[in-house]
Amino acid sequence: MLDVALYGAGRIGKIHAGNLVRQPGVRLKYVVDVDAAAAAELAQRYGAEVAPVDAPFADPSVGVVAIASSTDTHADLILRAAAAGKHIFCEKPVDLALDRARVCAQAVAKAGVRCLIGFQRRYDPTFAAVKERIVAGEIGEPEMLVVTSRDPGAPPVSYIKASGGIFKDMLIHDFDIFRWILDDPAVSVHAEASCLTDPAIAAAGDADCTAVTIRTRRGRLCVINTSRRAAYGYDQRFEVLGSKGMLQAGNHRPTEVVASTATAVSADLPEHFFLERYRVAYANEMAHFFDALASGKPLRTTVDDGLAALELADAATRSWQEGRIVAL
Amino acid sequence: MLDVALYGAGRIGKIHAGNLVRQPGVRLKYVVDVDAAAAAELAQRYGAEVAPVDAPFADPSVGVVAIASSTDTHADLILRAAAAGKHIFCEKPVDLALDRARVCAQAVAKAGVRCLIGFQRRYDPTFAAVKERIVAGEIGEPEMLVVTSRDPGAPPVSYIKASGGIFKDMLIHDFDIFRWILDDPAVSVHAEASCLTDPAIAAAGDADCTAVTIRTRRGRLCVINTSRRAAYGYDQRFEVLGSKGMLQAGNHRPTEVVASTATAVSADLPEHFFLERYRVAYANEMAHFFDALASGKPLRTTVDDGLAALELADAATRSWQEGRIVAL
Amino acid sequence: MLDVALYGAGRIGKIHAGNLVRQPGVRLKYVVDVDAAAAAELAQRYGAEVAPVDAPFADPSVGVVAIASSTDTHADLILRAAAAGKHIFCEKPVDLALDRARVCAQAVAKAGVRCLIGFQRRYDPTFAAVKERIVAGEIGEPEMLVVTSRDPGAPPVSYIKASGGIFKDMLIHDFDIFRWILDDPAVSVHAEASCLTDPAIAAAGDADCTAVTIRTRRGRLCVINTSRRAAYGYDQRFEVLGSKGMLQAGNHRPTEVVASTATAVSADLPEHFFLERYRVAYANEMAHFFDALASGKPLRTTVDDGLAALELADAATRSWQEGRIVAL
Amino acid sequence: MLDVALYGAGRIGKIHAGNLVRQPGVRLKYVVDVDAAAAAELAQRYGAEVAPVDAPFADPSVGVVAIASSTDTHADLILRAAAAGKHIFCEKPVDLALDRARVCAQAVAKAGVRCLIGFQRRYDPTFAAVKERIVAGEIGEPEMLVVTSRDPGAPPVSYIKASGGIFKDMLIHDFDIFRWILDDPAVSVHAEASCLTDPAIAAAGDADCTAVTIRTRRGRLCVINTSRRAAYGYDQRFEVLGSKGMLQAGNHRPTEVVASTATAVSADLPEHFFLERYRVAYANEMAHFFDALASGKPLRTTVDDGLAALELADAATRSWQEGRIVAL
Repeated sequence: MLDVALYGAGRIGKIHAGNLVRQPGVRLKYVVDVDAAAAAELAQRYGAEVAPVDAPFADPSVGVVAIASSTDTHADLILRAAAAGKHIFCEKPVDLALDRARVCAQAVAKAGVRCLIGFQRRYDPTFAAVKERIVAGEIGEPEMLVVTSRDPGAPPVSYIKASGGIFKDMLIHDFDIFRWILDDPAVSVHAEASCLTDPAIAAAGDADCTAVTIRTRRGRLCVINTSRRAAYGYDQRFEVLGSKGMLQAGNHRPTEVVASTATAVSADLPEHFFLERYRVAYANEMAHFFDALASGKPLRTTVDDGLAALELADAATRSWQEGRIVAL
Repeated sequence: MLDVALYGAGRIGKIHAGNLVRQPGVRLKYVVDVDAAAAAELAQRYGAEVAPVDAPFADPSVGVVAIASSTDTHADLILRAAAAGKHIFCEKPVDLALDRARVCAQAVAKAGVRCLIGFQRRYDPTFAAVKERIVAGEIGEPEMLVVTSRDPGAPPVSYIKASGGIFKDMLIHDFDIFRWILDDPAVSVHAEASCLTDPAIAAAGDADCTAVTIRTRRGRLCVINTSRRAAYGYDQRFEVLGSKGMLQAGNHRPTEVVASTATAVSADLPEHFFLERYRVAYANEMAHFFDALASGKPLRTTVDDGLAALELADAATRSWQEGRIVAL
Repeated sequence: MLDVALYGAGRIGKIHAGNLVRQPGVRLKYVVDVDAAAAAELAQRYGAEVAPVDAPFADPSVGVVAIASSTDTHADLILRAAAAGKHIFCEKPVDLALDRARVCAQAVAKAGVRCLIGFQRRYDPTFAAVKERIVAGEIGEPEMLVVTSRDPGAPPVSYIKASGGIFKDMLIHDFDIFRWILDDPAVSVHAEASCLTDPAIAAAGDADCTAVTIRTRRGRLCVINTSRRAAYGYDQRFEVLGSKGMLQAGNHRPTEVVASTATAVSADLPEHFFLERYRVAYANEMAHFFDALASGKPLRTTVDDGLAALELADAATRSWQEGRIVAL
Repeated sequence: MLDVALYGAGRIGKIHAGNLVRQPGVRLKYVVDVDAAAAAELAQRYGAEVAPVDAPFADPSVGVVAIASSTDTHADLILRAAAAGKHIFCEKPVDLALDRARVCAQAVAKAGVRCLIGFQRRYDPTFAAVKERIVAGEIGEPEMLVVTSRDPGAPPVSYIKASGGIFKDMLIHDFDIFRWILDDPAVSVHAEASCLTDPAIAAAGDADCTAVTIRTRRGRLCVINTSRRAAYGYDQRFEVLGSKGMLQAGNHRPTEVVASTATAVSADLPEHFFLERYRVAYANEMAHFFDALASGKPLRTTVDDGLAALELADAATRSWQEGRIVAL
């Protein structure tokens, strides 16, 4: 039986807890959260104990630390888990600061523990199928990637102020998709951004929509367009043009109902937001993590992927702020 | 130059006139209509003459008689055209009465003239592609045909009273699709029908929606469902299940716009009615007619097809009225 | 804690077991199967005991009997469970014989136990959304229902011989959809059927494709077309035409990938068969059952629904075998 | 009767000729082409005369000059037509050189003649419907435009060498779409490009795929991605995200057939190339031109639009070649 300590009993912590307890041979032993009530409720639900921050690191029965707490705690928990020789499952990002993320990556490497960073999109059935079909050669050589990534609505400005900015907070996922799908290092990044939904976001020094162009070493192009607002819901698409064709990953819908009325032929809106859209991805991600631990096979998304996506987000931020193309 | 006399200057007559004059080597010489103003307007538009009913039959320069006048005039005009040795392009149906339609078919055969009956759906790009792909073996042996055929709204009851009933007026096209697509003679017909949109239709002895099942000699099944009313427009679909797959003919839309709003993801309604939906089919039909005349190749839809579809419509009418399965 | 005894540890039994154990306050206490190994494996997986057939009925702690064993055992187990005052969750059908199914319905009523019959389609998110939207008036009065129901391939002839025939084995679900969606009693049934995929099915006295027409008391029409074989997988669609529009329930796909190559623009095949297609429906069905037990709210699919669907299947079988329209 | 002189009897000249002769009150009087045989064939087909370059300008009966000859002749013909007081219908581009295009715009303005530049996409039913629906407020304020524009295959390198480069030759249409749809002046352009399909294109100093970002005065963003090669045909899509939703213009298909086989559910490829895709657009464009001449209403695409699109293409070319963001 593999004992797990979960840090974070909020929205995403609950999702991970539910997936954790379904893994064969895995037990949720501890739940840690500054919100004692939340920790207690989640712990009780799955027969776990509430613990203070330090305790799980000191418990030799704990083999895995799962981190779903706030972003500013990730690096510290990763470092402590690595030091304690625990394997790590950590929500993205590693940290908002590049140098600190590098320290984490080095610590993980030195400790020889496994560390999955939660780029859950790579575990989505649709996205993963596109990757597999590219690898299988279905569209020949990939040449261009177009990513569309839009949230249903902007988060509160208080959130945005602590978010690291739209490139690190929101596009970090899209940069990971870029790295995974094109599998060719970026040589330059150009980012344009604007603030159109709420002046308070601009006042906080951030943008709410972006257009990013990345050029790779082999001359492939990637275009990412994002917005903090889409009236129709969570828009998560990408398409890959290759020498022999195109693969498109489309949105998922709650149902397959089509209504034909006097005004239009209509389908459902996309799944509303990430908890719905990536429900299966989160489950697959957790299963993959424990499978990899058991089998010794490589993790699909490591701390190094977290670091690399952050480097792109950092470059994009500078490109936008300085109004220039950033070479990598 | 091949001279044509057109009978009927109404809605469908105008469509045919426009297509006629685009055929190379073809001239619209006469327009005939009881509505003198309509005849004059159409004749003037294309540089033709208005003529009384008899004149074109007596003019040896006329090689083709095109019949787009009211249904009750079709048989008489076919007989006169055949007697005068003119080739015939005639809107469906041949006649509402089976015996009279048979007389027409015999007269055409005896005269040795060509006679196209306007089952325009066979000339529709989508429908014709399905037929070609079946013939090419793409779905193996066809086993089941499901036809959905719905009008945007019921015609006036005055029209319905003279229409011959829904099976002869509306389903005649669907019976032709059945014959064309499955290419296997019917051995039995069962028809159910109902009147749900307007009691006046029931009072006139007719129905406004139907469900027909046909069994063929080789045991294939065909299901036709129709309605006089579809709030969303003209619904013209069919699908063919074969041993190796399925081919579906879908509706055509005016544009390929998709709108995603706060309530739904919506596409255009289907093309509103037959004049829009079958615009290209009517043009293809006319081109096919003159190509066949010039090349001697067989017509895709002949007076015999008109007779055969009428026989099915007649059987379906009896099945419904007598509440029994009709053997053929 | 509500203790459950599960009869049947086969394919569908495993599905139900997995869903059972996720219900809060529910415990899988016994697993019963003539295949001792299958029973042991499933029991062990969820910490249950293997039991002989009789034991659970005698155990007062057992509140629910879940029946997923072979069709010929359903009626007997229902009767014993009712006699023992246990609530019942039973896979369809109640029984292949109408009179025996009636006895079961009477026994359930007399015992005052709850009995859900597993018409899982009513719990499918897409199908349930159509029903809700009809009830909400989105398409006005329903007028016509077209059901398309095709399996990826025919079962072994040995299965077919014991199946009660295609109408009772396969269309029983479609008859239930008809009853649920149109909510208007059938007054007549016409069934046509054919055997096109395998002569051995005909030799066994059965058919492999069918076309059924049902007329309701209010004059609504329902058309069901089915086949035992669809090369492209499990085809589960229906559409409802109403006075104000149409609602269509489409197939579900494993992913939302679209591939554009030199030959076509292609999407995934439908979910392969019922275990994949109705995975969520089975989970919803089980949750609904225990919710209804806890709340006292009505069950969505009862033994009376099982009986009524069987009556339609019986009428359709007679219609086909006797070549006539059957009045109800 | 309005007499027209057509310059250019090639592929696009034939399309325009066919549309010209269908306009009421319009006569094709002259056809001019350096290829005498092509000119003769086209002239004969529509009862026109073959003429040398100068003749039509000297013929006072000629009211309109239609220019469909090679790009390097456009400016000269525009200037001569303006000088002769003829209205002008001219294929894009005005000229490859910005200063020369400016001279043309000035000459047209000074002469007071009308001059339509053939940005035919604005006359496409799908694209025009998107524009109308934006103007009608359906998606609130437009915020982001994503244009995808891909040819089925690259033209010969000899063509590319004389084309002015991919931005002026291919993206000129996309820049026009940007101007038309967002209706907000560009303030900066960033262009990235690459050569992946054929090294000979790179050797000629050109690229075969591009990614362009435009920022407008009001902070809206436009992203254009293009490629000279798409294995699946001519890909012509754009989508507009607005404050209240999104409108997408999708590809057109030859038919609405969907095939479900053992491997996939497949639809037709998009219309193969611009002659097929924009067949209706070309017809609408010509009708619009003569309607505008007759009514005095403004032209939808003028020589000033031609100039403005060229300015963007010029800026994009410099952005790519100089590796910097170009301010406008």
